[in-house]
Amino acid sequence: MTNEEILGVTVLNSWRLVINRFNKTLSELSDEQLQQQAAPARNRVFYLLGHLTAMHDRMFTLLGIGARLHTELDEPYIANPDRVLGDPLSATELRRAWAEVNDKLTRAFEGFTWEDWLQKHTAVSDEDFIKHPMRNRLAVVMNRTSHASYHAGQAAFTK
Amino acid sequence: MTNEEILGVTVLNSWRLVINRFNKTLSELSDEQLQQQAAPARNRVFYLLGHLTAMHDRMFTLLGIGARLHTELDEPYIANPDRVLGDPLSATELRRAWAEVNDKLTRAFEGFTWEDWLQKHTAVSDEDFIKHPMRNRLAVVMNRTSHASYHAGQAAFTK
Repeated sequence: MTNEEILGVTVLNSWRLVINRFNKTLSELSDEQLQQQAAPARNRVFYLLGHLTAMHDRMFTLLGIGARLHTELDEPYIANPDRVLGDPLSATELRRAWAEVNDKLTRAFEGFTWEDWLQKHTAVSDEDFIKHPMRNRLAVVMNRTSHASYHAGQAAFTK
Repeated sequence: MTNEEILGVTVLNSWRLVINRFNKTLSELSDEQLQQQAAPARNRVFYLLGHLTAMHDRMFTLLGIGARLHTELDEPYIANPDRVLGDPLSATELRRAWAEVNDKLTRAFEGFTWEDWLQKHTAVSDEDFIKHPMRNRLAVVMNRTSHASYHAGQAAFTK
């Protein structure tokens, strides 16, 4: 393996580890448990799952790698706090959306060369990117990995 | 900046973001609040802080970048669950240890070239590393970043 290939696999492993850990928690929770709050007066796990699915779905356009799959999740799980709007998907549908979004993202990441990882994301202008080249796709994926892990820790409290 | 420098800064930013987010939560919690459980029947935030400090302190030897600073934290916060052993440090001392360990790690990471990042960590044999070159220092730091974020999400429940 070349150094660049090793780097790509290392980043992908870190992403996969976090997604898989959250998937394990999800697989141990019934649809009824998803409706429980992760802690008293905190978000339901259902909300955390909707939030992560929406944030990951946004990566398709943010990274410029394809069309989004689930824009219907933005309003209830990003723009609003828990329980303000109704859930647009059933538990089964939301679990499927989460898997679908991550599978499609992971396949795209698997095809990235190191030049692809270091390209700018679409929320930064060409001008700003010249000054801040670390505002790249790698930064987005590493930060989303940490973000998913943050909420995975909270969701694990429901088990 | 060269591509390698950009990669180094991107990884460091991701690490710093998580540490700083946890520091912000810590700064908003009194020493008394550190003694609270993050959720009913869960670890105290004091335990989470001790656990993260010990795990980060272990990186000095795991990455082969120097001597450990706080081995006294392993028994109470890694080898045992919460409240089995007494706390060896006061809240003030533990907050200081956490800052000290992360500052020293961050300074070491800042000096890493990409060849340094891709070196094997000390828990893998030379033989295994040839077969699994992704068991490198970068993988350790990315996984510890996710791990810190996992517990940061839990600690934030105390606010």
